[in-house]
Amino acid sequence: MKKYSVAIVGATGAVGKQILYLLEKSTIQIDQLRLLASAKSAGKTEKFKNKEIVVEETTEDSFKDIDLAFFSASGTVTKKYQQVARDLGAIVIDNTSAFRMDADVPLVIPEVNPEQLHAHNQLIANPNCSTIQMVVTLKPIAEAFGLQRVIVSTYQAVSGAGLDALKEMETQTQAVLNGKKPQAHILPSSSDKKHYPIAFNAIPQIDLFSEDGYTLEEWKMINETKKIMKIEALQVAATCVRIPVKSGHSESIYLEVNKDNVTVNDIKKVLENAPGVLLEDKPSNQIYPMAITAAGKKEVFVGRIRRDLDNKKGFHLWVVSDNLIKGAALNAVQIAEKMIDMSLL
Amino acid sequence: MKKYSVAIVGATGAVGKQILYLLEKSTIQIDQLRLLASAKSAGKTEKFKNKEIVVEETTEDSFKDIDLAFFSASGTVTKKYQQVARDLGAIVIDNTSAFRMDADVPLVIPEVNPEQLHAHNQLIANPNCSTIQMVVTLKPIAEAFGLQRVIVSTYQAVSGAGLDALKEMETQTQAVLNGKKPQAHILPSSSDKKHYPIAFNAIPQIDLFSEDGYTLEEWKMINETKKIMKIEALQVAATCVRIPVKSGHSESIYLEVNKDNVTVNDIKKVLENAPGVLLEDKPSNQIYPMAITAAGKKEVFVGRIRRDLDNKKGFHLWVVSDNLIKGAALNAVQIAEKMIDMSLL
Repeated sequence: MKKYSVAIVGATGAVGKQILYLLEKSTIQIDQLRLLASAKSAGKTEKFKNKEIVVEETTEDSFKDIDLAFFSASGTVTKKYQQVARDLGAIVIDNTSAFRMDADVPLVIPEVNPEQLHAHNQLIANPNCSTIQMVVTLKPIAEAFGLQRVIVSTYQAVSGAGLDALKEMETQTQAVLNGKKPQAHILPSSSDKKHYPIAFNAIPQIDLFSEDGYTLEEWKMINETKKIMKIEALQVAATCVRIPVKSGHSESIYLEVNKDNVTVNDIKKVLENAPGVLLEDKPSNQIYPMAITAAGKKEVFVGRIRRDLDNKKGFHLWVVSDNLIKGAALNAVQIAEKMIDMSLL
Repeated sequence: MKKYSVAIVGATGAVGKQILYLLEKSTIQIDQLRLLASAKSAGKTEKFKNKEIVVEETTEDSFKDIDLAFFSASGTVTKKYQQVARDLGAIVIDNTSAFRMDADVPLVIPEVNPEQLHAHNQLIANPNCSTIQMVVTLKPIAEAFGLQRVIVSTYQAVSGAGLDALKEMETQTQAVLNGKKPQAHILPSSSDKKHYPIAFNAIPQIDLFSEDGYTLEEWKMINETKKIMKIEALQVAATCVRIPVKSGHSESIYLEVNKDNVTVNDIKKVLENAPGVLLEDKPSNQIYPMAITAAGKKEVFVGRIRRDLDNKKGFHLWVVSDNLIKGAALNAVQIAEKMIDMSLL
């Protein structure tokens, strides 16, 4: 079996740490593992298979002899180093939004559109966390019954904004419990002007606003879903909201299929057999997906499946998955595993 | 000016305390105020205009000489005492769901359907918290442009489940911050079999499930909206979710109007002039409604108004209001004030 030299850029971040953890359990044979981060994090150590690895500062020299590079720092870092890494022969799997919508960069969820990997040019984009869990659910439904329309409202966890945001939520929460005023410096977006506390709040802004009043996160869900699913006429609307949850994005999804006479049981059957999906849908026994039960797990959990009361082709779903795992690190590692399966790596 | 003898049933609860507070600031002239609760709470005192009032146990004798009785205990308590109160001459304003869908009981939001108050038979129902803030927003839009369809996903605060649920959320949250396992005994519904922690979680169940897979809270939003707005063909779908917020329900609302060529600015103008509504909608300056800024305020806050990308008659809104104030206590007090205005009380 082939052995690979692997680099993780952003190895000390929320997603990078998860990639490290998942690589330990992966079938990918690793010869050499290079952990890269900013100068600030260089010198720290992370454990991999009981061995301490020292984190190095990312430079142009970091990618020598690397076969596979996971990028999970920022769009800026990806833009700065991806070409060097590719020129030196690496295949880059990028978790940022930098190249997702580029026409010649495959945007891949292995359960959904692995065939796109053939068209890789040493650069594969990992979709946005909120997109991945939705599309993993929508794809089998679209294949079985067609899909015309999706309206989604999200309930997104703070870990999606990074470890510092998570720490800030904990500090804010403790402050509120102590009767003090919470301080905010990160959310809704560290690069935006104003910051609001997430503790005991719901913030209807993730990422920056575009001029049309939609946020970039909402545009990601809309555009990425269309690109991955390849349904030209698919209508997608999204409202993205941050809530005080650590890990696990929840989504309230309304969808309309094309076929007539589809039943809730038809949808359930399709989802039960869908790869990566776990049905949790027994309202009579209060079984439905929740962030705290999905956190730390690999699957996309679906429940509360019910027919719309007015539109016969309409259905409502509640979809939850760990945004750092299937929503980010796991999907990236699965892309690499799939490429090995397909002899592309 | 006429003076009234007023009773509050459930005076020590989350909504009862708010009614007491709002009555202090109301134009209603109060002659006598009787605070009623369960035997467990009898003997406690509450302040009203700097006077201590001793809470009494609710009995059939409690309603002698009462002109106006606010009920905010439980549906069971309302069913037990409302007839006695009415027989003794009181007008009952009920905050529970006990009589909301009775054909001969007006379900009233004073800004929306005050004319229904004429048909009162000494019993007026206060709508559900999540319904009130949505309908206050939808009504002016429906009047100006017609309304065909509403799809709402809610982000509901814990205070809607009562003061004990609020305390439990705080205890759970402190436990999680201390690295301990949170204990759950109340949410999602104290009368259901299983209980789940709300700390750092989102629970897609409010109230019990009906056999069709919808929760009773979802049915309340659907049925009450149709009853109050009196639009026969109105399509309403709801997904109701509890999140770790103290006070202030948020709602992601998709709606379709009847008229062609309605713009976002048309919607904004109508909402700017709507009674009880405050527009907070400047994305370029990160101005939008949030639970922590709406808490403690009387208005229904609306923002993030934007056109659907596919349906020309479709719009998206983000609506937030304090569930204990306009969502409960304030609406009840406003019903009484309106009835005095209309010489019905």
